[in-house]
Amino acid sequence: MAIDPIPFLSKYASFPSVSTDSAYAEGMKGARDYVKNALTELGFAVEEVATPKHPIVLAERGPDREDVPHVIIYGHYDVQPADPFELWKSPAFEPEVRDGRLYGRGTADNKGPQAVQMTALSRLLDEHPDLPLRITYLIEGEEEMGSPSFLGFLEKYGERLSKADMILLSDTGSPGTEQIVITTGLRGMLGMEVTLTGPELDLHSGVNGGPVLNPVQALTELCASLHNKDGSVNVPGFYDAVVEPLTWEREELAKLPVTEEQYREILGVPGFIHPHGATALELVRFFPTLEFNGIGGGYQGEGSKTIIPAKAFVKITCRLVPDQDEADIVAKLKTALLERCPPQVKIDVKVDKGGSPYYVAPAGRPNTAPDLSPVFATACEAAEVSIEEAFGKKPLYLREGGSIPIIRDLKDKTGLDSLMIGLFTPRDNLHAPNESFEIDMMMKGIDAYQSILRRMAFGE
Amino acid sequence: MAIDPIPFLSKYASFPSVSTDSAYAEGMKGARDYVKNALTELGFAVEEVATPKHPIVLAERGPDREDVPHVIIYGHYDVQPADPFELWKSPAFEPEVRDGRLYGRGTADNKGPQAVQMTALSRLLDEHPDLPLRITYLIEGEEEMGSPSFLGFLEKYGERLSKADMILLSDTGSPGTEQIVITTGLRGMLGMEVTLTGPELDLHSGVNGGPVLNPVQALTELCASLHNKDGSVNVPGFYDAVVEPLTWEREELAKLPVTEEQYREILGVPGFIHPHGATALELVRFFPTLEFNGIGGGYQGEGSKTIIPAKAFVKITCRLVPDQDEADIVAKLKTALLERCPPQVKIDVKVDKGGSPYYVAPAGRPNTAPDLSPVFATACEAAEVSIEEAFGKKPLYLREGGSIPIIRDLKDKTGLDSLMIGLFTPRDNLHAPNESFEIDMMMKGIDAYQSILRRMAFGE
Repeated sequence: MAIDPIPFLSKYASFPSVSTDSAYAEGMKGARDYVKNALTELGFAVEEVATPKHPIVLAERGPDREDVPHVIIYGHYDVQPADPFELWKSPAFEPEVRDGRLYGRGTADNKGPQAVQMTALSRLLDEHPDLPLRITYLIEGEEEMGSPSFLGFLEKYGERLSKADMILLSDTGSPGTEQIVITTGLRGMLGMEVTLTGPELDLHSGVNGGPVLNPVQALTELCASLHNKDGSVNVPGFYDAVVEPLTWEREELAKLPVTEEQYREILGVPGFIHPHGATALELVRFFPTLEFNGIGGGYQGEGSKTIIPAKAFVKITCRLVPDQDEADIVAKLKTALLERCPPQVKIDVKVDKGGSPYYVAPAGRPNTAPDLSPVFATACEAAEVSIEEAFGKKPLYLREGGSIPIIRDLKDKTGLDSLMIGLFTPRDNLHAPNESFEIDMMMKGIDAYQSILRRMAFGE
Repeated sequence: MAIDPIPFLSKYASFPSVSTDSAYAEGMKGARDYVKNALTELGFAVEEVATPKHPIVLAERGPDREDVPHVIIYGHYDVQPADPFELWKSPAFEPEVRDGRLYGRGTADNKGPQAVQMTALSRLLDEHPDLPLRITYLIEGEEEMGSPSFLGFLEKYGERLSKADMILLSDTGSPGTEQIVITTGLRGMLGMEVTLTGPELDLHSGVNGGPVLNPVQALTELCASLHNKDGSVNVPGFYDAVVEPLTWEREELAKLPVTEEQYREILGVPGFIHPHGATALELVRFFPTLEFNGIGGGYQGEGSKTIIPAKAFVKITCRLVPDQDEADIVAKLKTALLERCPPQVKIDVKVDKGGSPYYVAPAGRPNTAPDLSPVFATACEAAEVSIEEAFGKKPLYLREGGSIPIIRDLKDKTGLDSLMIGLFTPRDNLHAPNESFEIDMMMKGIDAYQSILRRMAFGE
């Protein structure tokens, strides 16, 4: 019996499954049990795989035969924290339909797309109970905390997963229902925290100011050395492995129905910078960055405190593009930091786990991988036709600025590529108050997914 | 009856008189009432002068006659904030004697020297109840917040104060009891808080990173532009008015019993910088600085948060030397900041009140002012003899790195010069956790002050 998507998603999103906060353990279990139950009803054999933090739901159905295509559908049942709660117009975990949207934490990221996929599958199974398609559902509970248990899971389950042909997911964005985007690339990421220490204690800036190199001064000079005047990154070798986008990719990007001025207004910035002479949209999708996510040191309260601070720190992340390698860029950045740090302060560099970038060109492009899975190629065609039918327009194939490190991990450990169909839009307020999912996107998405799965199963 | 200095100071320092934080209003009142009561017991007519923030204690005693010297003794009853509290070995506001020192916030800055002066005066008055010396006590409660009400007070009381002959205070430092310093100059100060704003809200650093000028990046580049490679200040015209010290001043400084290496060890820094090719001690006393007292922006918690912060700020103070003028340097720095700020961020510069530098050469030097007050000249001689008697060595006459902006204001509004006898030492941890005052310094200081006041009263 087919799923009724709005009540299904409303219930799913009512579980406060915040993975980063142990106070929400019950909400995590609620969401997990809900999705396990839904998959059981769809005829899946459901397992719950324990991890050091939150269990992964693993479920399979359909014929286990060489001649039957096998797709892994990935999603996550955890959501971002919902605070500040007072900014929500309706309670974050009491989903409510208003103005053609379903509001609630997780309605878009990522429970809505899962509701789309499961509804589509339930309809298809109503028509074809013996659907010749093997499906593995892989729904994790740590995406919003950076999937810390995922690599460990892959160590154990990678071989079993590698028997599939491809991965299908919707955890990326599109401009709106008028233009769906299939994501061909994700930026990788690395993270560092750099701390400079000068005097053992804060010093009086009058009594001792002059010969002491202020750690905040040293830090700002060190940070300032990391970019060139045009805004590009000034770390030797940083761009060595960067692969310039091909002409077809630039042409796809040019079709995006967003001008640079509109984008600037959406972000609310006075102006853009243009390193490499690239446009704003190109910079997000084709180029790596070195970003300061936070900085702190000395007195930050009201008024003034006339000290030379003992310490100062900065949090850095880089977004990486193909074929940059996380470990290589970590080493280059660390070398630059250590070489440039003056001897009057001590430097400490703490490296966080990140991930390398991911890229897959669809079938039939100049940069399509020669060993691209035939099932993936079929799925691309199925997606193109189905999306055009459901949304009235062909999808665009674009790289994305964000990172989903597990997509690269899955490629490395199982060899499988991911087909990423964007169902979020910039109006969905992901990770922010008043997150919502558009009903129109949901309905058209269900139609598109039903056709995609049907075409993958029957080859037409 | 003479004051017992250690219990007197212990009680005084037990009042948490933090002027910058309104939560400490009760501590402010406690300290103020304590000092008012002490002065009343010493025979002073005590007034409490209201100001927009914290009242000033004004007290007078002694013959009001032309032929009787009249000295103003300045001090402040407010103290620096004591946080971070967890770094104190004994509670900041529960003074405790350990290893020949009295520990507690304000024991040195500035309650200890006041205890020295009042104890000395109480002993002298025991011997000479009709002491032929007129004394005005002026104890303010806003020194640690930059004395914002002091100029307004001087507008009203300046004429009355100008009837005195000179000012006497101990709110400056000496290397230790083995070498007392009389301060001839104080650096001036200016303060600014600079805030850069980029996007209206924090942005996702993956989805939008590339074309957006990160406000932390812009701020670090702006800050880095303010110093040259050698550590000197890179603001056009910054050094124009700086007067080089005379030979006798460099010679006095050379007598300081502190090597550069000892000074480095005291501060606990890996090394010094040497702008202008000057020594560490020269840099503190003869040159201006531009210091970053605090910086903040974006995510500062544990782990990472992948944002482009909406804002970042830095707190700047400059220390100024003769003949730099506060307003002139404020204008030059502000111009440099505005000119160098890139158009992709908005800049806001908030200027705090500071003060210009102060200088007075003692009697008989090449740069002694021709109109130096005779009472001041007598006091210099009294101090030189009394300090040699009490401490076993003549004082050195040196400029100081710190600032007491009101000393310059007092000179401008009343014409009076200040004799500044240093009772702090570098081991006192001023403005830092575990502030303390040395008992030996206290006892010898009391002897010296008793002699100085006696010699000023009796001319011998």
